[in-house]
Amino acid sequence: MDHTVTLSRLFVGIQDDLDQVDALFQERSTSGLDILNSASMHVLGAQGKRLRTALTLLSGKLHTYRFEKLLPLSVAFEMVHLATLIHDDIVDEAKTRRGLPTVNTLWGDKIALLLGDYFFAKTAGLIADVRDHRIDQLFSDTVATVCEGSILEMMTAGRIDLTPDTYYEKIRHKTACLIAACSKGGAIASNASDEEIGLLYEYGINLGTTFQIIDDILDYTKDQSTIGKPAGNDLRQGMVTLPLIYALQEHPQNGHYEQVHDLLISTTRKEDDIQAVVAWVNSGYGIQRALTDAHTYSYKAKEALYHFPPSPDRAVLDKLVDFVIARNR
Amino acid sequence: MDHTVTLSRLFVGIQDDLDQVDALFQERSTSGLDILNSASMHVLGAQGKRLRTALTLLSGKLHTYRFEKLLPLSVAFEMVHLATLIHDDIVDEAKTRRGLPTVNTLWGDKIALLLGDYFFAKTAGLIADVRDHRIDQLFSDTVATVCEGSILEMMTAGRIDLTPDTYYEKIRHKTACLIAACSKGGAIASNASDEEIGLLYEYGINLGTTFQIIDDILDYTKDQSTIGKPAGNDLRQGMVTLPLIYALQEHPQNGHYEQVHDLLISTTRKEDDIQAVVAWVNSGYGIQRALTDAHTYSYKAKEALYHFPPSPDRAVLDKLVDFVIARNR
Repeated sequence: MDHTVTLSRLFVGIQDDLDQVDALFQERSTSGLDILNSASMHVLGAQGKRLRTALTLLSGKLHTYRFEKLLPLSVAFEMVHLATLIHDDIVDEAKTRRGLPTVNTLWGDKIALLLGDYFFAKTAGLIADVRDHRIDQLFSDTVATVCEGSILEMMTAGRIDLTPDTYYEKIRHKTACLIAACSKGGAIASNASDEEIGLLYEYGINLGTTFQIIDDILDYTKDQSTIGKPAGNDLRQGMVTLPLIYALQEHPQNGHYEQVHDLLISTTRKEDDIQAVVAWVNSGYGIQRALTDAHTYSYKAKEALYHFPPSPDRAVLDKLVDFVIARNR
Repeated sequence: MDHTVTLSRLFVGIQDDLDQVDALFQERSTSGLDILNSASMHVLGAQGKRLRTALTLLSGKLHTYRFEKLLPLSVAFEMVHLATLIHDDIVDEAKTRRGLPTVNTLWGDKIALLLGDYFFAKTAGLIADVRDHRIDQLFSDTVATVCEGSILEMMTAGRIDLTPDTYYEKIRHKTACLIAACSKGGAIASNASDEEIGLLYEYGINLGTTFQIIDDILDYTKDQSTIGKPAGNDLRQGMVTLPLIYALQEHPQNGHYEQVHDLLISTTRKEDDIQAVVAWVNSGYGIQRALTDAHTYSYKAKEALYHFPPSPDRAVLDKLVDFVIARNR
């Protein structure tokens, strides 16, 4: 596997369609109010790798590719993702995202709240343009589940006794569910059979789970220059993730357990204490065990693709799993 | 006109259908998460007069009444209204609404933000159940406009030079637009002609404008016991509304102008200063001029109904205008 492969090389076959998705996104996020436009332009500039769009389009390519339906669907997925990120940054009191100041940092929590709402509102019109009742239902269920995931994350913050099961429930709700909706939605909008729709859902939910585990590992292993936020960011917010859960399981009752406990219940977490726990997690098997889990989920994602006949598009979906796993290097 | 008429007497003909709307609302707002359910139950208990549902159903009654479409549509309108109220209470830092503590007071801003999002998500599925592309578009446009209205309100807060025109632009976006969407949506879902859809939009936008002017008058004339919040609440938040705009026009450059100016730019508004301005606005013609405007809009709302043949349902829509105006007593 070539670790230097970039997403843009992987997506070269759908580049023109990705550009059209970008154009429609810009068109639909324009408002009559200047401040909304300024905030929109800011978040559009900071936009990520269009993973959700690519997933939607590529899943569609495995069946009867109907770009006129996949176009508004992709924009809706990207837009609702952006809305949840903007609202998450308020909840997390995040100052930066991908190296840029967040909307709440630049314009305050209130504008950030309303910009997120505005994007939510706009998605309704986009989903309507797909004109498929199953898509309407998928979209509504997915966004509700993501909201439940955010609440679950809030409710479990600071809990040193978080189990892997609850961790997985949380990331399935908060992250994997929307990624699975992209691959499932792409299949629905392309007249796939019920079995194929189910398989692409399986692909997405396992890819999304892999993605989030790797994200949580990176939060312990990489510094700001690589992922646009300081190492130990989750811990700084009192969030207990898989590497820490496994590290704690390894040393259930010793000095480190007390150290993590004190850090989590503290209202003013000191940077030195955070970095000490980050170093401790890096020194044990917590990272490795989390990575093993990520590999298990990545195999499941690939397995779901086996049913489909080999094709360049199936190969890209397969390589996408490798890409997500390779992010940990 | 009988001032003692209550909304429940006015809506007696649609009571069974209103109850079904309540039941579906409860069903659709149920989540797998306890805290979401607690917060939902709290806001459902504090629910208002179901004005939006009644408007949707009654507008449908003027044409081919199709309750199976009006039912999810009404629930969606009530739910999105509730979502915007929950988010507004965060933005306004409101402690109470209708005499009960707000969600942000009881559970904090973060849960309130996510509960609002959850309701937004749920509306998408309800709107899908109407299965009418025009309704999808109406709904998306309306929610986006309401968000713009909230931002406009934030941007114009503290502005002593606010003109009646900007005030009207703000309340059309923030309040009247959603009320107009109810009457227009009821017409669309009931196979009304384009002309009739336009007339019911006119009815709604003018009724909604009347409603908000009266609300803003009540904020100066009534104390907490009547409307569930203290008099001068808008002023307390630095919001300049029609009674104050007209009072300031009456006395453009005297001691009171300075007094209001100082109050608006102050970061810590003292209750005595607020009540002094409230008393001053009540002593002049500002309230009366705002009330005259409200009457003008109420006539326009009634005028839009003239096109429809007389019927008990048309009469209820007509009396609803009287009810909204009579709230100022």
